[in-house]
Amino acid sequence: MTRAAEHERAHADGRTHEHDGEHAYDVVVLGAGPVGENVVDRVRAAGLSAAVVETELVGGECSYWACMPSKSLLRPAIARSEARRVPGLRAHAYGPLDAHEVLAHRDSVVGDWKDDGQVDWVRSTGAQLYRGQGRLHGPRRVTVEGPEGDRHVLTARHAVAVCTGSRAVLPDLPGLAGARPWTSREATSSARVPERLIVVGGGVVGAEMATAWQALGSRVTLLVRGDGLLPRMEPFAGEHVADALAERGADIRTGVEVSAVVRDGSTGPVTVVLADGEVVEGDEVLFATGRRPRTEDIGLETVGLEPGSWLRVDDSLRVEGHDWLYAVGDVNHRALLTHQGKYQARIAGAAIAARAGGAGGEDGAAWSPYRATADHAAVPQVVFTDPEVAAVGLSLAAAEAAGHRVRAVDLDLTSVAGAGLYVQGYRGHARMVVDLDREVVLGVTFVGPGIGELLHSATVAVAGEVPIARLWHAVPSYPTLSEAWLRLLEAYRDGAGTP
Amino acid sequence: MTRAAEHERAHADGRTHEHDGEHAYDVVVLGAGPVGENVVDRVRAAGLSAAVVETELVGGECSYWACMPSKSLLRPAIARSEARRVPGLRAHAYGPLDAHEVLAHRDSVVGDWKDDGQVDWVRSTGAQLYRGQGRLHGPRRVTVEGPEGDRHVLTARHAVAVCTGSRAVLPDLPGLAGARPWTSREATSSARVPERLIVVGGGVVGAEMATAWQALGSRVTLLVRGDGLLPRMEPFAGEHVADALAERGADIRTGVEVSAVVRDGSTGPVTVVLADGEVVEGDEVLFATGRRPRTEDIGLETVGLEPGSWLRVDDSLRVEGHDWLYAVGDVNHRALLTHQGKYQARIAGAAIAARAGGAGGEDGAAWSPYRATADHAAVPQVVFTDPEVAAVGLSLAAAEAAGHRVRAVDLDLTSVAGAGLYVQGYRGHARMVVDLDREVVLGVTFVGPGIGELLHSATVAVAGEVPIARLWHAVPSYPTLSEAWLRLLEAYRDGAGTP
Repeated sequence: MTRAAEHERAHADGRTHEHDGEHAYDVVVLGAGPVGENVVDRVRAAGLSAAVVETELVGGECSYWACMPSKSLLRPAIARSEARRVPGLRAHAYGPLDAHEVLAHRDSVVGDWKDDGQVDWVRSTGAQLYRGQGRLHGPRRVTVEGPEGDRHVLTARHAVAVCTGSRAVLPDLPGLAGARPWTSREATSSARVPERLIVVGGGVVGAEMATAWQALGSRVTLLVRGDGLLPRMEPFAGEHVADALAERGADIRTGVEVSAVVRDGSTGPVTVVLADGEVVEGDEVLFATGRRPRTEDIGLETVGLEPGSWLRVDDSLRVEGHDWLYAVGDVNHRALLTHQGKYQARIAGAAIAARAGGAGGEDGAAWSPYRATADHAAVPQVVFTDPEVAAVGLSLAAAEAAGHRVRAVDLDLTSVAGAGLYVQGYRGHARMVVDLDREVVLGVTFVGPGIGELLHSATVAVAGEVPIARLWHAVPSYPTLSEAWLRLLEAYRDGAGTP
Repeated sequence: MTRAAEHERAHADGRTHEHDGEHAYDVVVLGAGPVGENVVDRVRAAGLSAAVVETELVGGECSYWACMPSKSLLRPAIARSEARRVPGLRAHAYGPLDAHEVLAHRDSVVGDWKDDGQVDWVRSTGAQLYRGQGRLHGPRRVTVEGPEGDRHVLTARHAVAVCTGSRAVLPDLPGLAGARPWTSREATSSARVPERLIVVGGGVVGAEMATAWQALGSRVTLLVRGDGLLPRMEPFAGEHVADALAERGADIRTGVEVSAVVRDGSTGPVTVVLADGEVVEGDEVLFATGRRPRTEDIGLETVGLEPGSWLRVDDSLRVEGHDWLYAVGDVNHRALLTHQGKYQARIAGAAIAARAGGAGGEDGAAWSPYRATADHAAVPQVVFTDPEVAAVGLSLAAAEAAGHRVRAVDLDLTSVAGAGLYVQGYRGHARMVVDLDREVVLGVTFVGPGIGELLHSATVAVAGEVPIARLWHAVPSYPTLSEAWLRLLEAYRDGAGTP
């Protein structure tokens, strides 16, 4: 759709909309990723008018440079790994993945990095889409600087929602800028399989991308500052993933610090220099070393907030001290996960609509439709490594740090009949953290093949605060992996576990 | 262990035990399948003495001729089917399964039909194992006729638990007896892949075995009396499975009646004659036409019960009118599923132990540790067909028949982002049945690749009676198949569904 056609459509929708004009909406949303889209969806469903401003592609990081492409790269890796351990099939699965086919499928999953479909969806909600850089310009006011120099001023009757997400952080290292490092964007969008890939960082992005590119044929070196992978999860999770990567040939070095990066010329190899003087040579280097909020250029200073900062919010996702300003998704630093941002978006949208209507939204009860209570108690995450990792709620360490009186029970998943039927030589582990005062589950972590879809059972148990006594009546089907639940409950009943 | 050694051990355990003698235990269990084993486990854990009597192999039908071998045959079929739809891998997965490898693995899964490991487990509990036919001989008394003509009389101070399970029914058809038909036993234990397999019956056994043998190379004809497969489940489940079997070449005939079966000689083909005069020729014919209780020769007549009947029990699994007699698992006809029998066994064991101690066990509250409440409300089942089917609780029809005021919401699973990432060309469907008066989920059914482990989330929701309003806070991880939950909740919120 041309811009002229856009304007025509805007007029047809009954909104005034001119170059350099000022336009009023009930709600203005900065950022049209999944989070912004969900805020739009909810406030539009409540009958509020909405505008959404997007600098890049409608659909956001998740659609083009994160969840979607990464999972399209990882699923073949995981499926092949499992096929290799299934009797009758394994002989077929020893060949290499067809990398060309995997990359072509990835390209189609991201719509070749075009956002037409997502734009259509936004428009179908009746929201107005503005392309360009949106910036706050004092309370309830947003300016948009369009790609062709056009400028719009939007005013928000009820709320502005900042949903601009986060971007990868590159550390300040000698030589890095000239070495064309990969971030998560290049790692998910590369059209070529590097022969040797150096991954710096052992968090989720590092572990997933090491898994994907290893399966596509790269020799992987993983450089980790800490003492293991997936440091925010139960320790056994990262251990299983590291063991599997290493068995497939990855060189994993923990406790190392990168001090410089060197790349000569445009096609030559890249050299990573470690603090102890060792050097590692590769063809590409991925820095998966954290995220920062995309809030540096959105006019936060005009409303007394610090540009580039994470935005602190209450459980209705409203920025502290600004009754009209919401920060939803990565920018609030509560949980940098697409699904959790979408959850927050549903909550924020409901709260905005209720407050606009003069009712509700102030209902402060935990687990109400206007409170993102799960952000504290029940954030789920599936890491698509091989083996998969899935966790929800609090780890043992986090539960203890939060002052809960807890017991953790552990389970070797090989004791589950369904495990050996799923793949031969199954290896996996589970932990359940129980609140001893309330006899409810605070957190569950699984690591092992095929456990990704099992996580939601734990998410329902944790978010639902289903008592342990009742979980005994939630019978796992035999012989599935879900029998892990029975073994965990038995271990808890029989007094196993720590402390 | 020799019988002499057994006797020695029994003496060492402090129990009197002689040929043709009379031995007293707190609890006597008939049948050492998973159900009997779990009753033994629970009463032994409560400090009661126990004897268990087994006619065939310790470990029961599930271990040797049902769940375990069938899933070992089905997993390669399912894994290959998925691999064929994963980019980068599919080219490798077009070859046939290595049937020899699959069958050899099946043999190892069933321990070559030897029960040493299971016997060791029973003994480790401290229970006494008697091999032979156990029969009630009046209240609280069981006779055992051993394989070598030895005879024992066991008395039960507190309870006798009948856990003898069920067996396949063969219909009374002309020629069938001489035609060496397969039942579920032969279908799970065959050492040979028949070139042409005729399957009579479209229930779970028929659908699963058609799937397994088709993948192993058989040409399958499926003869179904009703109008579709999996008749007890939501109609779309059987439709998806039938479509997939047919696309892979199965000949599915619904609404047909078998009137005769003919096989000449010992190696020739078998011919099935239909009521309309058509004939179907195959190399083997499987009759998967229902089960009957293994209660015909267990002395029921000595306690006023009908031999061969299903045994009616209350929610503590106690047979009506007999305060010492329990019937657990298939024999009570509540749910012919291993996991549900094991659940009942835990409940029965707890009730027996509580009553033996003079306390508890009479606690009639729903969902107490002494009541198998889930038998009514939350029975889960995973059907390992391709695509998989998983259901828990009530179907729409069952919920309406039970008088609930309900709404069912439906979902095409292709709308879930995780589906297209799981396999290309994903096809699947889900239905959630909501109790409109209590706003809880009464039942959920999924059909589609990869949904087996997702079922337990529904089982926790249904058994936990987690309110719909709280389920919104159980965030599904993106992009997994569990986002089906979000779409179902949205559809319910937005008023979709029937009636």
